[in-house]
Amino acid sequence: MTHKILVLPGDGIGPEIVAEAVKVLNVFTAEGNLSVELEYANIGGIAYDKEGQPYPDSTRALAQKADAILLGAVGGPQYDALDRPLRPERGLLAIRADLGLFANLRPAILYEELASASTLKPEVVAGLDIMIVRELTGGIYFGQPRGIRVLENGERQGFNSATYTESEIERIARVGFETAMKRNKRLCSVDKANVLEVCELWREIVEKVGKEYPEVELSHMYVDNAAMQLVRAPKQFDVIVTSNLFGDVLSDAAAMLTGSIGMLPSASLNSSACGLYEPIHGSAPDIAGKGIANPLATILSVAMLLRYSLNRPELAERIERAVKTVLASGVRTGDIYTEGDRKVGTAEMGDAVVAALQG
Amino acid sequence: MTHKILVLPGDGIGPEIVAEAVKVLNVFTAEGNLSVELEYANIGGIAYDKEGQPYPDSTRALAQKADAILLGAVGGPQYDALDRPLRPERGLLAIRADLGLFANLRPAILYEELASASTLKPEVVAGLDIMIVRELTGGIYFGQPRGIRVLENGERQGFNSATYTESEIERIARVGFETAMKRNKRLCSVDKANVLEVCELWREIVEKVGKEYPEVELSHMYVDNAAMQLVRAPKQFDVIVTSNLFGDVLSDAAAMLTGSIGMLPSASLNSSACGLYEPIHGSAPDIAGKGIANPLATILSVAMLLRYSLNRPELAERIERAVKTVLASGVRTGDIYTEGDRKVGTAEMGDAVVAALQG
Ligand SMILES: [Mg+2]
Ligand SMILES: [Mg+2]
Repeated sequence: MTHKILVLPGDGIGPEIVAEAVKVLNVFTAEGNLSVELEYANIGGIAYDKEGQPYPDSTRALAQKADAILLGAVGGPQYDALDRPLRPERGLLAIRADLGLFANLRPAILYEELASASTLKPEVVAGLDIMIVRELTGGIYFGQPRGIRVLENGERQGFNSATYTESEIERIARVGFETAMKRNKRLCSVDKANVLEVCELWREIVEKVGKEYPEVELSHMYVDNAAMQLVRAPKQFDVIVTSNLFGDVLSDAAAMLTGSIGMLPSASLNSSACGLYEPIHGSAPDIAGKGIANPLATILSVAMLLRYSLNRPELAERIERAVKTVLASGVRTGDIYTEGDRKVGTAEMGDAVVAALQG
Repeated sequence: MTHKILVLPGDGIGPEIVAEAVKVLNVFTAEGNLSVELEYANIGGIAYDKEGQPYPDSTRALAQKADAILLGAVGGPQYDALDRPLRPERGLLAIRADLGLFANLRPAILYEELASASTLKPEVVAGLDIMIVRELTGGIYFGQPRGIRVLENGERQGFNSATYTESEIERIARVGFETAMKRNKRLCSVDKANVLEVCELWREIVEKVGKEYPEVELSHMYVDNAAMQLVRAPKQFDVIVTSNLFGDVLSDAAAMLTGSIGMLPSASLNSSACGLYEPIHGSAPDIAGKGIANPLATILSVAMLLRYSLNRPELAERIERAVKTVLASGVRTGDIYTEGDRKVGTAEMGDAVVAALQG
């Protein structure tokens, strides 16, 4: 079976890092271990430049037929003056909405070799391996009504609505439990149920879904305490499931615990197996085109793609092992370099992973 | 001029730690440096036990006449089964609402002597001194409409409303700028203006108020980035001003950066000078009555009370210096004890601060 993979290099360092990730896919196809058909399209600023829209119809048509999508990054200072609907970031929001990508999986993993990059003490973070499951298409970022209105007294009031329906909560809770089942079977649902009714319903539904997963140890934590616990003892967590806003904040905090944003992949999934895979870092326009960006987050995004959309966990694990081998050999891009390492560029790092895969 | 201070010891360790804080106040009155009239009343679980309400009318009457309020802590497992409106925490929400305490000041300070208590590397947090100004009576915790409704398709939906009016934003922004003026004149306003309209208005009004404070360097940061930056480089911040929800999460994360929650005071202010001062830690029912709780957060709350409600910054500084002296001498309660220190109980710690004040 041939899988259609849509490749969206995007802006800034996107094309460079995606090229290295494609090299890794090519290793498996050359081995005869994987059959994929790669198609390329535009998204973000480059799509606006070439087609006038950050998420053009041509890209949408390909996305809707794809089995999985690999994305580099979008955005750059040259697009800051554009109207909001034309900005690169809108391309990302549009493709997520278009494909119904409601589940965002954000691992925070700290590789032993990079433990010193963290601002936390090594004993607190060494071996950190958390998965944050963030709801991505609901909650306050999308809730209606919203806007800025004028009150009777003439004063303006800004307002947004945090909303979740039972079915929205149920499907993200299910992703949380399924993810926990594949890991250490501990799921922590983060909410603010002591204050917010939307979270009261969240907790009730998570509890209900939990009955179908008796093997998973379910706990609940308030979001302010979760922020504290991530700083105090992050290794207590296995899988965290939470809302769009809380997930936005906590997944970024968790990522920063590792100290190496350039290492972290992500997956955004819908209710079929289709997913969008991308590094969590941005398009880094300041180093674009210099061949020095770290491609490992994108390469690890390919591992997630193989695991979640193509159901090839053994290939995903090979990539993850290869990355560890490369790190153990002391090869580093500038962002994760410390004295005594061998500093390499983007392409050399990709080649090193390829060599480790083949070795 | 005699200041009326209402003392609300509350539950758990509350009475023990408040007693030590009162000892400190007594030093100044004995010196003839301060004239205060202390009144005592009930709040929280003890108020429910004795008067049937967590915030009884008798307490309210005294609170409304007080110049400042010193609170210990509320809550305990024996109250968990009570109806929500009768729970100890409701007493706290009620007094905040009653007095219009819209500005919550949460310092995160890491004393040199306690740097090892942090999970972060000493060089990242040593000398940390941040002030978080959190809006406390608006935003999504109080917004209407709210609840759980049944949609047309029969499904339930939880909903809450994040709202801020211009005047609500303006007054908290002003507290932020005023606080920055008294410190290092840098204010970071945290929002999510790229996604939420309520934050768009927030940013606009903060900018407007900022024009009145040309000496203050104003910056804006998205809440997810702020959570990252607190982990990556917390010392970049001087004063942070933010909404109720974001402040809840960020102030707890910032507190945990210090690793010693038992050391941190807080102030909740209204538009007159009246304020409620309390440690950020809870009532710790597990150690209540044992005489081992750390009273320093409550003692430092008295310092904030002197600074913000009684306008006696020189007395506030004396307390803060005395606490540093005590820490430097190696005296520690159990929660901040490490090998080689001299472990003391609650009263001895209070006495040590009194001695340092008098010495
Ligand atoms: Mg984010
Ligand atoms: Mg909190």
